[in-house]
Order: sequence, then C-alpha cells, then structure tokens
Amino acid sequence: MGSLLIGQSGGPTSVINSSLIGAVKQALKEGKIDNIYGALYGISGVLSENFLNLKEYENELDTLAHTPAALLGSVRFMLPEPTIGNETYEKIISVFKKYNIEYFFYIGGNDSMDTCNKLNVYFQKVSFKCKVIGIPKTIDNDLVLTDHCPGYGSAAKYVATTLMEIYQDIQVYEKGRITIVEIMGRDAGWLTAASKLTRINDEGVDLIYLPEVPFDMSEFLNSVKTIYQKNKKVLVAVSEGIRDQNGEYILKYRSFNNNDSFGHLQLGGVSLVLCKIINEQLGLSTRAIELNLPQRCASHLTSLTDFKEAANCGKWAVKYALKGKTGVMISMNRISDYKIKYDCVPLSKVASFVKGFPTEWIINNNDISDEYLSYALPLIKGETGPKFYQGLPVHKKIKR
Amino acid sequence: MGSLLIGQSGGPTSVINSSLIGAVKQALKEGKIDNIYGALYGISGVLSENFLNLKEYENELDTLAHTPAALLGSVRFMLPEPTIGNETYEKIISVFKKYNIEYFFYIGGNDSMDTCNKLNVYFQKVSFKCKVIGIPKTIDNDLVLTDHCPGYGSAAKYVATTLMEIYQDIQVYEKGRITIVEIMGRDAGWLTAASKLTRINDEGVDLIYLPEVPFDMSEFLNSVKTIYQKNKKVLVAVSEGIRDQNGEYILKYRSFNNNDSFGHLQLGGVSLVLCKIINEQLGLSTRAIELNLPQRCASHLTSLTDFKEAANCGKWAVKYALKGKTGVMISMNRISDYKIKYDCVPLSKVASFVKGFPTEWIINNNDISDEYLSYALPLIKGETGPKFYQGLPVHKKIKR
Repeated sequence: MGSLLIGQSGGPTSVINSSLIGAVKQALKEGKIDNIYGALYGISGVLSENFLNLKEYENELDTLAHTPAALLGSVRFMLPEPTIGNETYEKIISVFKKYNIEYFFYIGGNDSMDTCNKLNVYFQKVSFKCKVIGIPKTIDNDLVLTDHCPGYGSAAKYVATTLMEIYQDIQVYEKGRITIVEIMGRDAGWLTAASKLTRINDEGVDLIYLPEVPFDMSEFLNSVKTIYQKNKKVLVAVSEGIRDQNGEYILKYRSFNNNDSFGHLQLGGVSLVLCKIINEQLGLSTRAIELNLPQRCASHLTSLTDFKEAANCGKWAVKYALKGKTGVMISMNRISDYKIKYDCVPLSKVASFVKGFPTEWIINNNDISDEYLSYALPLIKGETGPKFYQGLPVHKKIKR
Repeated sequence: MGSLLIGQSGGPTSVINSSLIGAVKQALKEGKIDNIYGALYGISGVLSENFLNLKEYENELDTLAHTPAALLGSVRFMLPEPTIGNETYEKIISVFKKYNIEYFFYIGGNDSMDTCNKLNVYFQKVSFKCKVIGIPKTIDNDLVLTDHCPGYGSAAKYVATTLMEIYQDIQVYEKGRITIVEIMGRDAGWLTAASKLTRINDEGVDLIYLPEVPFDMSEFLNSVKTIYQKNKKVLVAVSEGIRDQNGEYILKYRSFNNNDSFGHLQLGGVSLVLCKIINEQLGLSTRAIELNLPQRCASHLTSLTDFKEAANCGKWAVKYALKGKTGVMISMNRISDYKIKYDCVPLSKVASFVKGFPTEWIINNNDISDEYLSYALPLIKGETGPKFYQGLPVHKKIKR
C-alpha cells in the first residue's frame, strides 16, 4: 500500500481543516492507504521533509476540524515550469519515493491548483506514479468549473451577519454617517456580493461595489449624497479590489503601502480612501470598516453547509484517488435545489483561471440582482454550534 | 398609576436591548405602572414627544432583546446645567406632566448618567415628583461604583474570540507579520485587556497596550523586534486611546481625522500608525486590524451572563423605582465567586467619573496580570444561542 501526503496552501478559511479531516477520516475508513502524512507549510514542507503523522491525531479529529486556519501551516510558493530535470521536481520525487507517497492532495485556491497541475504534468512527463488531487478552498469563490468553493459559504455568512449587525448599529442616530465596509476580494466580487444577503431581512446595505465593473467616483459620490439626503445615513459594501476605468486600484490613493511575498500589492485601505474623499468633497462624516482577517477565520460563525461540503471534498479526493484519478480538482456540481454531486475536473483547466462574479448579476454598477440570493442562500445555511469552554471557542493546535 | 418612560443613549452594545426588555417585562409583571413609553433617540425624543407604546411589542419581547444596537435609537445630547427656569428642563417637565410620567429610566454610559443626574437635580430643585433611574450600559466598562457594566462581557467575549481566531490565522506562515489589533476604549483599557483572555487557551496575544499607562514608542519597537526574532510573527492588542508621555494620542500621526458630534476627536487609526512606524523603522511586514463597530454590536456572540445581567439591571430599575428610589444608578455588586447583588448608587457619585483599568494589574506596560482573568472570566461565560433563519441571525426592528 502507498501512503498519502496532504498539504494546505494559500490564505486560510474557516473550513480548510474540515477538508483535511474529511480526507483523513476517509483514508482511515478505506483502509487502503498506508501512512497519512501532513506536509507542514505546504510545498516547502514537502521539500524539507517536514512531515507529521496525521494518524496520531485520530482521537482529536472533530476538534481539529472546527479549528480555524490551516492546521498544517501554509505557504505562498510558486513552482517553476515543469521542465524535465528541474531540481525542485526531482527533489520532490526523491522525497515521495523515500516516503512511498502514492497520493498527494493539496488544499488551496488558484495558486495551489497551479502547483498541483505543474506537479502532475512533471510526474506524467517522467512517468512517476503518484495521484495528484487538488481540493478547492477559497473565500474568494473564484475557482472555475465548480459551482462554488469550500470556504466561501462561511465567509459569506460572516460578512452578511456582520453587516446586519453593523446596519443595526448605524441606525441608532437620527443623523448618522457614511459607513464604508471593505470586503476581501482582489479580482472577484463574490464575497462583497454576500452583502446583498442582508437585504432578505431588510437590514440592508445601500450600495455594493464589486471589482468586476469599473468604479466611477463621481457616480459613487452622487449615489452617496442622494441616499444620505433621504435616510441621513448610508451603508456601503465595497470590494478591496475595485479599480477605476483605467484598471487602477482605487486604494492607490492611500497613504501607506505594503507588498506581499509575491510582490503583489497588499490590498486593504480602500474604505479609508473613500471616506477621505467623501469627507473632503461632500463634507459628510464617515466611518471606514475593514472586515479584515475575521472574514477567513471566524470559525465560530461557520456555515454548516460549507463545513460539511468541505469535509466531503476531502472525502471524495480519497475516493477518486483510489479509483486512480490524477491531475484533477474535486468540484461541486449543483444538480438540484439544493444537492451537490462531487466530480473531478482537470487541473489544467482550473489552474490560473479566475471565475469572476457574473456581470449580468450586477445592477447599475452598485447593486446585485436577486438571482444571486438563490445561488448563495443554500451555501450559508446552518450553524455548526461551535464548542465553547469558559466562554471561549475550543480550538486544537497541531504541534508544528 | 403613573407611567414609565425609557430612553437609550450613547453607543449601542449587544445587550442594551436586554436591559430595555428586562425593564418592560418587570413593569408588565408588577402591574403598578400605567403606560410604558419608549423615547425615540433619547432625550431628543423626550423633548419632541417622539414616543412609542412599548406594550404593543409584548409578543415580540424576546426577539427584540436579542437584536443588537439601541432599538429606541440613541443620541449624543448634553443637558445644560440644571439652573431653575431653564427652558430645556421646563419643556421636559411639561412633557412628563402631559404623559403622566412618574418613572424615567435612561440606559447609557457616563454621559447618560450625567444626563440622568442633572435631570434628577432639577426635579428635586423644583419638587417635581418623578423617579429618575440610570441603567448602566457600556462596552468600555468604565462606570464607577459597579463591579462591571452590562455590555462589557459580550464585547470582551467578542474581542477574545476574534483574537483567538486571528491568532490561528497568523500562525499559518513560517515567516509571518506584525499584526496590530486595535480595540475600542478612549480612556479606559478594559476592553483591550480582554485580549488577555486569549492566553488561557495558549492562543495568545504577545503584547497588550492600554491607555492607562504612557505608550513608549522605542520600548514598543524593541519588544516587537525581540518577539519577531524569536517567533517570526507578533500579535499586538492596542487600545485606540493610547497616549505618549505628554498625554498626546499616538493616533495623531494618522493621515485623516474626523470629529464626532461633541467635537471630540474621533478615534480609530492607531493600528495603522503603528504599522507604518514598524514598517519604516524595523522594515517588517505588518497588518493593521481595527475591530471597529462589531465590538459593540456582534450580538451573535453575546455572553449569556452579560445578557442576563443586563436584563436584571432593567428589572431592578423597576423594583427600585416602585420602592421610591430616585437619582440612582443600578449597580452590580459581586458578592461571591460568582454572584451579583443589584444595588443602587447615587447618580451624583457616578456621573462624569471614569473607572480606569487598575494600573496594578498592568505588568511591564505591555501585559496584564492573571488577577484580571479571575475578574473577567465569569463575565464572558455562556452563549445565548442566537436564532438563525435562512443562515442569518434573526433581528427585530421597532418602527421609528
């Protein structure tokens, strides 16, 4: 019997560990897999043989599944092109041989699927027998060929719940402010669109801006002014990644910049930029709220549907791997209202593609159509009823 | 029988409506009070006779109690000095006479207790018979003569839970960042101190800075550097109100300022200031997280203890009012570990005083002693199990 190696990569989500544990449980159940290793810090742990034996955690799997953020640690690491003889790939193969790795799963988003794809391409080229399977994970919901991505439902539930609470808060004064809530999403507006969910309880945001359509500052100021004149307060949901007609980020006007480890511009701060402009140009009082990391780690507010689906993606990775599938990502196919079929799609058709929010669901550049509600409501359904001890959520760490 | 008028004032909390509903339920139960009015937007609603009949909501009281933010609306309104003949006070008396208001409750923090006190002083001066009772409410926990304040336990639970989740998130990369989490509190560090609660699960913040002690920038940079060298990531909790040796706000270095309706400097932004300084002086990557409004409105994470105590404060306001008490605030007296006795304290001894975090519980200017844990753990205990419908929390609005 061969062994299984699993890694996690990219930004964490509330349910990334549910996928990990889903795979571990199924592997244990099938009994056809020898060792189950976790690679610490993704591919960098593979290269440095920084592994742990996940079977040792057999009695703690449920608590681990409810702990937010990648238990195995994560990494932002781009593999080079898979040209034969490349030493990174050869190193990986030597490690895989040493540990008898027959199955490799990588839980992640776009960049991670690119890593999986390259690895599989290289293994095919050199006829190395290892099944490579990608398990989708991203709060951005921007992977193609899947109805949605594990992690999105919980993030959307967090965003909508938090906005409903903020809505209640900002209603208390007769004369309020312009509140700009900034939501994650560099290129895809899926998570910002979740602000639309607040409307089903009539606790709604007034304006919604996604990165899929150019942001027009004067139209924005006009809309804010009009709503303020009527309601004396305005609640705006805006994606951190909004850009102007020329494709330039609106946040470029901020006073302080950071870059991430890929040299990407670190986002964040567009709400403050918009507040400053409103304050200067309309003379209205403002408040910027950046929802920030809790969007991807507030596991106390996990969607039960999302949690289960994430586990199922892990489970199906094992099933498909044992059937001999490789070079695929597990995908979720919505076959009725509401049921999910777990399929495989070729990694080559997923890696590096981005599924934007459908522009036909964007109304007037500042609103979302009700079709989105039919799409999203099933994804946020149910609560996991997290365990608390002494008033605080119970998390479990893996010793890294 | 006389009638009861209740208002809410100042910033909302997750449990401000629990106090309101607690009072309404007790008033209904006692059967000795004629009408139960809510003044919309606090004192400004009193002056404009903007009232609603709270008995009409008798069947929805439980859902209303779980809705965040002041149901009756709030106001930031300072009463003038209570000199006899002042027209604001005379207007209030004429309104109270018109509606036969024999009991006036005001749910709020420092400024609201000042309002209550002035009102009571004026009523005494002109021998107007109306019982004035303050019901404490503040996430800042800074009212004197009470063990703690309704609103604090839930805010502390939110802060600690969110920090534990953020802790998990920032552990995922081997080489992480300096994450600065900014917590509410202009003068009192109680809420920032709640970050200490994360340590009981060993998911702790590394450094904690309260406004009660001067903030020393070079000591701060040294501490950050030392911890980063050891752990490759640092989690800092900082109060928005920290000041330097000269008493000047650290956030004065921010790029954009706003003032609130009292002309107070609007806080917020110190985390970004610190990030910029760390980035420039230590060359380390940073992330600023301002917890912002959810600290006072995230009712999905309400402390059950806090929720019940808030209701009890409302209940005891009715009991003490019917016993003839006036010019008092309901206070919570911790008589054992853990039991609360609901007392009355004179408003004159509460209004405009601020109870800071005990400096003897501050260690080395950047940590909190374990005595705080004994104080705070009972306050965050229990969950309210909020109702969700279609994956979203159930709130109920009052038509204003």
